[in-house]
Amino acid sequence: MTWQETAEKHRNRIAAAIPDEWRLTSMPPGDSVMSVPRDSGLLTQEELAITESTATDLVAKMAARELTSVAVTTAFCKRAALAHQLVNCCHEFFPDLALARAKELDEYISKNGKPVGPLHGLPISLKDQLRIKGLETTMGYVAWIGKRDTEDSVLVSLLQRAGAVFFCKTSVPQSLMVCETINNIMGRTVNPRNKNWSCGGSSGGEGAMVGFRGGLIGIGTDIGGSIRVPAAFNFLYGIRPSHGRLPYAKMANSMEGQETVHSVCGPLTHSIADMRLFMTSVLAEKPWEFDSKVIPMPWRQAEEDAIKTKIASKDLTLGFYNCDGVVLPHPPILRAVQTVVDAVKGAGHTVEPWEPYKHEEAWKLANSIYSSDGGTDIGAVLKESGEPAIPNIRELVDLTVTKSDINEVWDKQLKKWRYQCDYLDRIRAFEDKLGRSLDAIIAPITPTAAVRHNQFKYYGYATAVNLLDFTSVVVPVTFADKSVDVADTSYKPLSELDAAVQADYDAGIYHGAPAAVQIIGRRLTEEKIMAIAEEIGRLLGNEVTP
Amino acid sequence: MTWQETAEKHRNRIAAAIPDEWRLTSMPPGDSVMSVPRDSGLLTQEELAITESTATDLVAKMAARELTSVAVTTAFCKRAALAHQLVNCCHEFFPDLALARAKELDEYISKNGKPVGPLHGLPISLKDQLRIKGLETTMGYVAWIGKRDTEDSVLVSLLQRAGAVFFCKTSVPQSLMVCETINNIMGRTVNPRNKNWSCGGSSGGEGAMVGFRGGLIGIGTDIGGSIRVPAAFNFLYGIRPSHGRLPYAKMANSMEGQETVHSVCGPLTHSIADMRLFMTSVLAEKPWEFDSKVIPMPWRQAEEDAIKTKIASKDLTLGFYNCDGVVLPHPPILRAVQTVVDAVKGAGHTVEPWEPYKHEEAWKLANSIYSSDGGTDIGAVLKESGEPAIPNIRELVDLTVTKSDINEVWDKQLKKWRYQCDYLDRIRAFEDKLGRSLDAIIAPITPTAAVRHNQFKYYGYATAVNLLDFTSVVVPVTFADKSVDVADTSYKPLSELDAAVQADYDAGIYHGAPAAVQIIGRRLTEEKIMAIAEEIGRLLGNEVTP
Repeated sequence: MTWQETAEKHRNRIAAAIPDEWRLTSMPPGDSVMSVPRDSGLLTQEELAITESTATDLVAKMAARELTSVAVTTAFCKRAALAHQLVNCCHEFFPDLALARAKELDEYISKNGKPVGPLHGLPISLKDQLRIKGLETTMGYVAWIGKRDTEDSVLVSLLQRAGAVFFCKTSVPQSLMVCETINNIMGRTVNPRNKNWSCGGSSGGEGAMVGFRGGLIGIGTDIGGSIRVPAAFNFLYGIRPSHGRLPYAKMANSMEGQETVHSVCGPLTHSIADMRLFMTSVLAEKPWEFDSKVIPMPWRQAEEDAIKTKIASKDLTLGFYNCDGVVLPHPPILRAVQTVVDAVKGAGHTVEPWEPYKHEEAWKLANSIYSSDGGTDIGAVLKESGEPAIPNIRELVDLTVTKSDINEVWDKQLKKWRYQCDYLDRIRAFEDKLGRSLDAIIAPITPTAAVRHNQFKYYGYATAVNLLDFTSVVVPVTFADKSVDVADTSYKPLSELDAAVQADYDAGIYHGAPAAVQIIGRRLTEEKIMAIAEEIGRLLGNEVTP
Repeated sequence: MTWQETAEKHRNRIAAAIPDEWRLTSMPPGDSVMSVPRDSGLLTQEELAITESTATDLVAKMAARELTSVAVTTAFCKRAALAHQLVNCCHEFFPDLALARAKELDEYISKNGKPVGPLHGLPISLKDQLRIKGLETTMGYVAWIGKRDTEDSVLVSLLQRAGAVFFCKTSVPQSLMVCETINNIMGRTVNPRNKNWSCGGSSGGEGAMVGFRGGLIGIGTDIGGSIRVPAAFNFLYGIRPSHGRLPYAKMANSMEGQETVHSVCGPLTHSIADMRLFMTSVLAEKPWEFDSKVIPMPWRQAEEDAIKTKIASKDLTLGFYNCDGVVLPHPPILRAVQTVVDAVKGAGHTVEPWEPYKHEEAWKLANSIYSSDGGTDIGAVLKESGEPAIPNIRELVDLTVTKSDINEVWDKQLKKWRYQCDYLDRIRAFEDKLGRSLDAIIAPITPTAAVRHNQFKYYGYATAVNLLDFTSVVVPVTFADKSVDVADTSYKPLSELDAAVQADYDAGIYHGAPAAVQIIGRRLTEEKIMAIAEEIGRLLGNEVTP
């Protein structure tokens, strides 16, 4: 079989997994598909209400036996089926398994009178990197089609213990090393708000799926923005926890064993409340007893309480930057940063400019780490099936990229550590100058609002944070608006790359695209940064229903 | 200048740093030098009392202004000067700087009425890997002689903030990658209890210095036993904290940037109380704000209290093994393990056999990680001065060791992670079977009591723990006794290596050598394992004064 035939067969299998009664008879007109769940008539009023609810509310209702998991799972499976038909976001779709599991959970609670765990009955979507015993993990590689997993990823088994229901695995770009979502098996995943925009990547299928409410909590991974970018492009919250907070063991990956910059996993959600539900539920399972890389650090309620007291006292101290000195963000992102700064200042907190420290070096160092093996690992998987590299990763697998010697890698690791420590020095200097401790930094996560296909050019806003291993939470802020987000024609680009990014801006085409910021904190400050992100969301009044 | 001349000049400079009035006029007869401080008449009664006290007691008395730091520092400088003359354990000795600092601290407390911090006035010895601005760090490399440090290691500056006084830097083996202490600059450091025995290594100078009470808290580092082995060989407590608990930034090292198995730092002490003083003092300085690799995890009093409650209720559950399946320990170590098992069981706790899981693989994997660069880094430093490799590291720098390719290193990292997770699985299975949670494992740290020079052959008891990144505390147990520690002549060695280790045993020559065990806990369980080690020490009644 040619790789094309193998891919087509897989694609057809996924399409066939959608029951006839959940199929659209025609594609909707226009660029946005967000109104299809309501307009198509395929979902009942109850199913619409369930999928437009919150995870926090749903688990409470299931625990109180006001809702069954079968009802909830059916609703999300139907909406997810629509999502896949509309934006092509699934690598696997298994409603039968999901409904069987939901039924078991319903029987359990009816027999025992209590839920199996804090996520009892809740459907959760998984990036196609997490392994479920018996299913496939292709990660967008044709060569991996047909290889069934023999064990669950640790996160999968812990979520299962907490009561979650799995129903789909979502799309990723071939290799994962891209912030858009395209591969040779499924093709491209598009943004449900506008099919001309990217859903982001590499957790792009999650971004599209959760953005469309085919699920309310989706699991992504982030080594260079791969949770945060899809969250931003789909008007969602997304957290890149610091390495060691959540279990990553037994997941698939490109360049497995690369530990210089760790990929981390985390949820994409519609609210911080749902994100907290996920984090507390996973940590309650003591993931450090299963995955050696997880730090024995339960949810620190005292940290959450302390920052909430500070918030209530209007006593936060935040830094901010809208340009990292490498690429200036487009007008919608500059406005998003300013909107957040104004909101936080307006509420009485302290916000001061933060000077980004050598972000260009950080970005370049991160890139050189990602390409340490000169594309050997990814190249080998591509060769196995004969499929070509997607255009977006050609640089990574190009044979002109030199493989690093082990001593060169150690040197990169030393540079990384030194950079991290220097950054801490800068924070302490900032605090000394201000006489206040810094709680977080407001920054762009991408230079663009939800980007047009094949125009993702600059990863530095995301990757500097990965190199630092800082905690970062993306907060959705606003939407590009052609009437106010006008380009400054007198702007002199910082570099050729900057000029190329600026040239891509078109206020008309970007009109309506989600614009987000990230809230960055020191390493392992998840409780704190989530609470600050929640307060910013509250100040912005950005809770949206579709 | 030849490398020999450079080394001799350095050696002479250190010797000359000892004031005439602290010099011995003749070397004592016999193999042990432990009685010299008392016999030589060089120390006053007060100085003997100070050096034979505890760090915990001394800081309390200095804080209460019952003792001055000048008095305490003088006492330890004198005793350290004796140590160096007797066992050759200093790479740097700077009593003038120490006394100037002590004077400042005395002035501070007399002016302000309170100590600068919890270690106010306490002399602390440093392995010659920690940098002090303006001094040299040779780490046993001739090439590094004369290079003055331009910044303090993070741990040095935090200890300074806590009030510590530095007075010496202690000896290490060339490259650090050996559990004995010998280099081409200073020669060999010997064990103060018997000059025919090794002081251990690589923190061997610390082991000898603290063992001799030239200081009460010494800072070592451990990538393959380098804190625990010298602690064991000098009848001391020593902790290998898990990576990320204490700050290592800005220290010198061989193979800097190697992060597959992290070297960690930690104290060697005469008691767990002094160890706790050190740990709580450093953590109170928030090292995570200075070193990015440190986890924001303050001293967890709740963890300490919880395990102490368990101890009081005779409710501990410990595993134990006396053989890892690779090399059987000598009779004194087998007896040490049994002594601890009996003591803990006798006190009413639960002790069950623990089956070591694939320790041979762990040891081999660790070795292949330590030699990943085929000796490139160490070889380059040796080449710089022209000095030869010490015999003990020839295997590491031998050109026949192949340098690993980066994909091979990633594969090793993946194997390490998998091994760690498998080990966690074993612990959970053990717990499930017993219906009790496992608190710690009692195990040998070396197959020998304090080893004879050049006979350290097997590192596996130590390195398996480094590979796992488990917390481990060495507890001194007993001394080899020729009347009871008789070799089993019917024993069939497990391998050639085992046979070689067994052949080295000689009950007469080992008579009196310190024999220790290590108490191993999961990752980042310092509070818990220290409390268990303390209880074991109490049960053994092993608090000793010289």
